[in-house]
Amino acid sequence: MAEMALNSADAAFVERLRTVLPDVAFTADPAGFLIEPRGRWTGQGVVVSPATTDEVSALLAACFEAAVPVIPYSGGTGLVGGQVLEGGPVPVVLSLARMNSIRAVYPNENVIEVDAGVILQDVQVAATDAGRLFPLSLASQGSARIGGLLATNAGGLNVIRYGNARTQCLGVEVVLADGTIWNGMSRLRKDNTGYDLRDLMIGSEGSLGVITGASLRMMPRPAEEATAMFVVPTPAAAVSLLALAGERLGETISAFELIHRQGFDFLAEVEMDHKRPFAQTPEWSVLMKVGLPKGQSPQEALEALFEAAGGLVLDGVIAQSGQQAQALWDIRETIPEANKRVGSISSHDISVPISCVPDFIEKAPAILAKTGDFRINCFGHLGDGNLHYNVFPPEGRNRAEYVDLRDAIKAAVHDLAHSFGGSVSAEHGIGRLKVQDLETYGDPAKLAMMRAIKDALDPRGIMNPGAVLRAK
Amino acid sequence: MAEMALNSADAAFVERLRTVLPDVAFTADPAGFLIEPRGRWTGQGVVVSPATTDEVSALLAACFEAAVPVIPYSGGTGLVGGQVLEGGPVPVVLSLARMNSIRAVYPNENVIEVDAGVILQDVQVAATDAGRLFPLSLASQGSARIGGLLATNAGGLNVIRYGNARTQCLGVEVVLADGTIWNGMSRLRKDNTGYDLRDLMIGSEGSLGVITGASLRMMPRPAEEATAMFVVPTPAAAVSLLALAGERLGETISAFELIHRQGFDFLAEVEMDHKRPFAQTPEWSVLMKVGLPKGQSPQEALEALFEAAGGLVLDGVIAQSGQQAQALWDIRETIPEANKRVGSISSHDISVPISCVPDFIEKAPAILAKTGDFRINCFGHLGDGNLHYNVFPPEGRNRAEYVDLRDAIKAAVHDLAHSFGGSVSAEHGIGRLKVQDLETYGDPAKLAMMRAIKDALDPRGIMNPGAVLRAK
Repeated sequence: MAEMALNSADAAFVERLRTVLPDVAFTADPAGFLIEPRGRWTGQGVVVSPATTDEVSALLAACFEAAVPVIPYSGGTGLVGGQVLEGGPVPVVLSLARMNSIRAVYPNENVIEVDAGVILQDVQVAATDAGRLFPLSLASQGSARIGGLLATNAGGLNVIRYGNARTQCLGVEVVLADGTIWNGMSRLRKDNTGYDLRDLMIGSEGSLGVITGASLRMMPRPAEEATAMFVVPTPAAAVSLLALAGERLGETISAFELIHRQGFDFLAEVEMDHKRPFAQTPEWSVLMKVGLPKGQSPQEALEALFEAAGGLVLDGVIAQSGQQAQALWDIRETIPEANKRVGSISSHDISVPISCVPDFIEKAPAILAKTGDFRINCFGHLGDGNLHYNVFPPEGRNRAEYVDLRDAIKAAVHDLAHSFGGSVSAEHGIGRLKVQDLETYGDPAKLAMMRAIKDALDPRGIMNPGAVLRAK
Repeated sequence: MAEMALNSADAAFVERLRTVLPDVAFTADPAGFLIEPRGRWTGQGVVVSPATTDEVSALLAACFEAAVPVIPYSGGTGLVGGQVLEGGPVPVVLSLARMNSIRAVYPNENVIEVDAGVILQDVQVAATDAGRLFPLSLASQGSARIGGLLATNAGGLNVIRYGNARTQCLGVEVVLADGTIWNGMSRLRKDNTGYDLRDLMIGSEGSLGVITGASLRMMPRPAEEATAMFVVPTPAAAVSLLALAGERLGETISAFELIHRQGFDFLAEVEMDHKRPFAQTPEWSVLMKVGLPKGQSPQEALEALFEAAGGLVLDGVIAQSGQQAQALWDIRETIPEANKRVGSISSHDISVPISCVPDFIEKAPAILAKTGDFRINCFGHLGDGNLHYNVFPPEGRNRAEYVDLRDAIKAAVHDLAHSFGGSVSAEHGIGRLKVQDLETYGDPAKLAMMRAIKDALDPRGIMNPGAVLRAK
């Protein structure tokens, strides 16, 4: 299909929109919608906030007819620039903020149906109120909205047990580029009737359509939970401990996080220090959570694991109360903020096959040392083979002095992850930041298929142009 | 893209194939490849059995160039005719039987990489040998091959805990219609780099490409397992018992099957009777399996559930040995064969939201009674809301006398399932048998998207024409 030039959302077009949408849809203060968390880009656009799926449909139909680009905007917490368009024709920024109703809760089915604009924390609370768990959990859960979490297939802390956002979704309602509404909402656990379009939309980052509603899967709340922090001699020991824990505890491991000493040191450096669980700060430690059925003792299970671990574990603390557990989790959950205050030169969200993690951690510093003298904070979701590998200037130096090295550092880390069959975006997505990476590291056949599907479902290329795939 | 007429795999084309494939690829006896388990259709075609991904690529490139249709053929156990093409141009039947190597096993990663032609049982054994579990389990596991199980997103007994075939797959290797090889094999747990083409190929029933390899997820083996059969007063009580079990046992429920008295009666009728677990055959019973981490007692957990269930459970037996457990499972696993021997007029693989199951089971017989006097065997995967709802002639009568009523019966069952927001193919897929059902019950926007994707990835329409989507 011949590509058609895109047009700006100019005054005349906005007048046109006002004939199909109520005035209240145009009242949002645009400022907050044109930035992204790291402040790397400033977007442009006319912010429109429809309140219903039909209004989204009317909006997209008008944009499609006039070939005006549309940037779907959910919580705005994405870290790869998928929510901001800097140059080119002025887009419509489609905010989901006014579509924030919980549509229905079915406790006995473990299903909750929501508008795409509902904030993650509100879904978690609704699930808790129903005696259930909505397991998706990440740092931005107070502002991230379900539509964006699905569009980017968000990950977070509990993926090892519950999977990422994709796994939590039974069905979606989507408005396509031309305004067509696909009602893919479903409360079914099994439905083999045709292509899996739900999973195609999940992770497509708004480039194929706008998710306006979702049918989400809740889980039973683990009746008994416990947390432990184990000191491990090496990352290899941490990987072996993960395998041993899997053999003993099966799918009851809710989280398995790797923490490097640098994380503790940064917390002290920016005066966010917590009570340290060990007299001597461990070089490598693992933070794990176990959730068991009613009447079982996760503390005992963790003690038994500690006993069985032998030399894989040098020392350990097992929280004996929810308060003690939270104190341990506060350490892990504050590290990203400490990183932010210290200021990284380059941050990376990579994954490799789990058994390759030790090799990656051994090789990366030597490679980076050729570029300069850096501090590295390597931590993250070891249970998923997903590391946040962040590179910082030496103590007392400023990231600004190293900005010229950012691309070289990023290339070195990404090349190494790729050499292990790894991913250069484990959970953050492609957005606009990593389009080049996808072209560099992605399988050519995959890229060709993606382009063919994009052209088939968004023939005028109005949906989030330049995100995931380079704009033509 | 303009549709191009398809051509038969005639003698000249086969000669052409012989220039790109070795003679051994043409030696399979075609007879076994041109039938399907229920004997409803007889196919046609030239059977070709490539041994490598490159040979599949060469084969498809030749078919694409000559616009010859290709029917991917895996284990041939599908029940909806996806593996047989009766009329039209003579196709190439692409057998995966010679691609049957296990490529690699990574126990510490819970990953196994296989050729698409490996038989499910062989994957299960390889996982067991590695001290792990490959949880996909269904009646045809001795002959079903991984490629077909993924292409149809197979279900089976353990979906409630482990999900269907889709959930067991980390990555796929696919040969596209024009012979292009997409290497989507992956050992990663998290990878958000572009559209989810893996899940698009899974469930596409060979209509978008041929899966030639897969990277599969193994699970830890539950250390302690136990099975119980509970007598429930009603299907509604069974659904409440499922919710209660979920609250108490979480994701440790490996199976939750509903069985109706008719199943026991058919076993007796065809002299396949087993030792009955209860003096009086229960009208409704539930067969459930629980698998717990090391050192815990699933028998005790099931006893505690029985105690807590109150009036939801009238009677129960909890297997005290693996032998006793197998005896209970033998009953469930023999019912499909008994059904086959009795001979159903029409069989249905439907799903509805779990809380709608009791309504469905109450309403369906009254609706069918308007068409005639039938016996109904309703059983299946209650934990997934998936019922095998099979309709039989009265005792002493033969299915052949009722063949004229088959379409009316099918329509009545499917209309009712659809009225609950259910599916007319929970786990068997669309194939050729249910293309009309998909057109009747499917969302129009979904069907249009499917067609657009089919045209984009298979522009000449050579891949399994007439399966899932009507051939143009």
